[in-house]
Order: sequence, then C-alpha cells, then structure tokens
Amino acid sequence: MAAHYLDPLLAGLRGAGLQVEAAVVPAGEASKSLTQAGELYDRLLRARLDRGSVVVALGGGVVTDLAGFVAATYMRGIPWVAVSTTLLGQVDASVGGKTAVDHPRCKNLIGAFHQPSLVLADVSTLATLPDEEFRTGLAEVVKHAVIRDAQLFGLLETRPDPILSRDPEALEDVVARNVKIKADVIMADPHEGGLRRILNYGHTVGHALESAAIEGSGKLGGAPVTHGRAVALGMMAEARIALARGLIGTVPVERQRQVLKRFGLPVQLEASVDLERCLALMQYDKKALAGRLRFVLPEAIGAVRDVDDVAEDEIRQALLSLTSD
Amino acid sequence: MAAHYLDPLLAGLRGAGLQVEAAVVPAGEASKSLTQAGELYDRLLRARLDRGSVVVALGGGVVTDLAGFVAATYMRGIPWVAVSTTLLGQVDASVGGKTAVDHPRCKNLIGAFHQPSLVLADVSTLATLPDEEFRTGLAEVVKHAVIRDAQLFGLLETRPDPILSRDPEALEDVVARNVKIKADVIMADPHEGGLRRILNYGHTVGHALESAAIEGSGKLGGAPVTHGRAVALGMMAEARIALARGLIGTVPVERQRQVLKRFGLPVQLEASVDLERCLALMQYDKKALAGRLRFVLPEAIGAVRDVDDVAEDEIRQALLSLTSD
Repeated sequence: MAAHYLDPLLAGLRGAGLQVEAAVVPAGEASKSLTQAGELYDRLLRARLDRGSVVVALGGGVVTDLAGFVAATYMRGIPWVAVSTTLLGQVDASVGGKTAVDHPRCKNLIGAFHQPSLVLADVSTLATLPDEEFRTGLAEVVKHAVIRDAQLFGLLETRPDPILSRDPEALEDVVARNVKIKADVIMADPHEGGLRRILNYGHTVGHALESAAIEGSGKLGGAPVTHGRAVALGMMAEARIALARGLIGTVPVERQRQVLKRFGLPVQLEASVDLERCLALMQYDKKALAGRLRFVLPEAIGAVRDVDDVAEDEIRQALLSLTSD
Repeated sequence: MAAHYLDPLLAGLRGAGLQVEAAVVPAGEASKSLTQAGELYDRLLRARLDRGSVVVALGGGVVTDLAGFVAATYMRGIPWVAVSTTLLGQVDASVGGKTAVDHPRCKNLIGAFHQPSLVLADVSTLATLPDEEFRTGLAEVVKHAVIRDAQLFGLLETRPDPILSRDPEALEDVVARNVKIKADVIMADPHEGGLRRILNYGHTVGHALESAAIEGSGKLGGAPVTHGRAVALGMMAEARIALARGLIGTVPVERQRQVLKRFGLPVQLEASVDLERCLALMQYDKKALAGRLRFVLPEAIGAVRDVDDVAEDEIRQALLSLTSD
C-alpha cells in the first residue's frame, strides 16, 4: 500500500498543515504481532506522539488491526483513523472498532475495542489490489449477504461481472451496502455480547483452516489458503452443518456455493487435508466459550442463528462432505 | 505476595467450586513489560481462558497493572479482580481502572482503561509488607491528602504513630479515606480528560526521577529511589514551583515536608544528581501534551490546580532548591 498511496497521503496531510511521520510495516499477517506492536510503540514515542496525536492506518486489514491496536494501547488510547485500501478492509476490518494482533497459536487473541474516529474507504484504491486480495474481500461480502441481506445476495448472483471487473460504481454500491450491514449489527451490539456474533459466520471453521494453513506454510492440502479462501470453505462447512440438521434446504446452500465459485473462491477441500488437526485447532478458537464452540448457522439466504451445541462429529461430517464434492 | 497469600486464595476459590490456575511473575517493576504480558497471554491461552473467565490479580501495583492490562487485551477484554496486598495498591493502583506495562523509556506507556469487576483490599495483608513498600504507599496517601483532603492531612500530621505501627483499625480508616478520594476523582473523570489529572501531583517530576534512578540501577545520587520516594521528592519539587510562583505560602509547603519526613520519605535530593538528565526525561513523560509539560501545583493543603505553562527554568530552580535544603 505504501508504494501507491503513502506519498499522496503524506502530501495531503502536510498540505493541511499537519506534522506527520511515516512508519512502514512489512506486508503480511506476520506483522500482526506483539513484536511489531512493540516496534511501533518505539516509533510513536520517538516521534513524541501524545494524547493529542492521531494514528492514521493506511493499508489493509493487517495494518488497520495492528495500528488500531497500537492506538488503543499507546498511552491507554489515542485517536486513530482507518484509511482502508483493500476490499476486505473496506467492507469488514475497518468497521466496528475491533483491533488486534495475533498470538502464534491464536489469531486476534490480543486486542482491544477502539473505534476509529474516521473510516475512509476510497474504492479507487481497489484498482491496484491483487486478485487474491480482492477475492478475500469478496468472501466477506458473500458472508454479509448470507447472514443479513437477501437483496445484496441477489445482486451478487445476478450481476457479478461489474463487481469482478471492479467497476467503480458497482464497487461503491457494494462497499456502501456492506458497511451498512456491518455497522447496523455493531451498533446493536458494540462489544460482541450477542447479535455481533453472526458476523462470525464461516469463521469458526474458517479460522481453524487458516491456522492449519499457517502451520503448512500457507497451504492446505497443497492449495494456498488465504483468509478469504478459508472463510469461503468455512461458510460451506457451516452451511453443511445447517443442512444436516435440517435448518436450511439444499437450494440456498447450492446458491451460496455457486456465488462463491463465481467469485473465484474455493468451495471444496482437498482430500489430503488433515481434518483432525483442523478440529483440534478449532478448540483454540478464542470464541470457544467454556469449551463449547459457537457456530453461526444459516436458516435461509439473509438469515442465520447462533448455536453452541454442534457436536464434534457434525463438524467432522461437514468437513468430510467438502472433500467429496 | 505469592509466598503469603496465593495458597489461601487458591484454596478459597477452589472451595467455592471454581476452576483455578496460578501464574506467578517475578517481583519488581521489570515484570511490567510487554514480554511478561506476552508470557501471560501464553499461559491464559494454554489454560484455555475465554471471555467467560476472570483474571484475579493478587499482589501490588506491578501485578495489578500487568494483570489488568493482560485482562484488558486478552480476547479484547475479559473481566478481572484486583486483590491488592500493598498499601500502594490498596490506596492507589487498584482503584480507577488504569492498567499498563512499561516501555523501556517510558513508564506505563502501553496500557488500557479497564475497570476491575471487584477491588479487594484486606489490610491484614499489609502486616507482612516490607517497610520500603509501605512507605511507597504512604507517599500516595500524603499526595491524596494534599490534593483533596485537608482533614486527612490533619490526621496524618497529628496521629502518624498508629499508621506507622500498622494498627489495623488506623489502616482501615486510611485505606477507606484514600479509596474514597481517588474514586470520587475518577468517577468525575473516568478517562483523564480533566479533574483526574490532579492525581498526578508529584508525578511529573517523580516519574522523571524514577526513570533516572532506573538508569542508575535503582539509585539516584547514591540513594535508592523507589516510586514512593520519587513521588515524595516530586511533591516537594512541585510545591517549590508553586511557592516560587506565589501560588502557595511557606507554611503549607513546610507542613508537607514534615509529614513526608515523619513517614520516612525523602524531601531532598543529593547534590550529585544529574538534574539536566532528569529534565530531559521529563520531556518523555507521557503526560506531556504537544510538547508542554503539565504540572499539578498546590494552592493550599487540600487544593491544587493543573497548569501547563511551567518553564524549564522553574523546574530547574525547584530541583536545585531540593539539593540545598
């Protein structure tokens, strides 16, 4: 991100008469660490930032999560602004005030709720986004549609092309709809006491797959697994749990599968994936409450419910069903 | 603290049917580090703590600051309880929801506001407290009296003996009065926007002296400088600034000096202390706003004001005056 947008941003802020210092962190999830946060505290202190200063996070979800966490904990909290340059950031990570760094064994384990003072989503920055990162954002877009917005789902189903070709008008519409869905959920439940959990659809299984992929140097059964790919697979697995329970019919599950495929997201697992390892990793998910994993299960396109009584064997069956598609 | 009270606490909690795991951190300020916090996140994760769990901090200010910070940031915040076993903890650190770890160059730089669900102050734990740590608490007691409570100050002046001999009834009275002073200030200003700053009396200079002492392996001009000693010296320096400005008369400053002395706290600096280094360290105080140091200056016993226009030379003169008492 720094390569494309740092200089114009610095020029803009300086032009407005502000004193600005830049710190660049390496790209990739590895930067969401306590070590990297430690280096940023150093930088902030050396630049003499105080409670009257503002942290501006320019980048994707890694940068907004990390910089937001540093802002949340530097001097017990200073203001911050999220300037999101990825689709994932614009439709998801930058909205809601969740900030975090990863623990080696658990994503987002160390964090804080700290609302940004401003979220800036300029869809023109998406023009330079690599395909794989664009797809990652699309996974969350599909998720938002499935949990909360049948109309958005219909749009994804019937008019995917302008989105895939990154038509600015189509993107602006998609980003605005997604921010609205997420903001509505969060305003109703800012600290994840209840409703907000529905945003975890696809993520209970997804995070485990992502952790398994991290253990396998970013690959799962030979295929690369990014956050978006993991969430797509997670949504498929969790929809299959709902299907096996008779909560949802085959038609909406198939519609979800088709939309994910259309957006270039995976909908099946390689048979060689170690499912037992994924199950074990799920136990470390920070959302596991008193040993019970919570799942968000779809009941229809646009409606989900939050349950905590999914048996290990139901998860195993759902994962297995993904290897035999 | 672990030596005296960990086993009874564990037995009590287990007796109540709770599942408990203990983690012991080394005594001393060095434990208030990001590294130590990192080790505690590991422990919490291995013990499978989740958002339904509670962190119980048993110990002095170091432990409550550190454990409170870990509780504030583990899974973006889980509940915690402060069981304070030092006078400093009981009258100060455990009240107000400030949690933090230190940066190598700035005390309490990394932290969060996170109110404990319960603060337990059992004065019987003070019987085993080393003298030096008891004195550290007394410095904050004197501070509370000077900023807010002339009646408490009168009590410290006229009846110091039962406090110094740690008579449980006298201690209970002192702790209750101090918690009330601090809680009143904090309830009026939970996030340190205004009034709460008065609690920093003695701390602008005090923190710098403490940092200088840390650089000198805990000593300043050959004498050991703990937090309490640094705050006592800080209060004297800041009272001298007020005196030089004509904000306060010589009588109340002398009364403060006598009470601090009576409680075994230092009221003068060794001539060999590097005052310029202390001044430089003050610039790193996290309360410096846009380059301006804030000072809380006494106007009378029981009343202070918060100013931001103290010139470097006024500070230098006040520090110098402490070396020539």
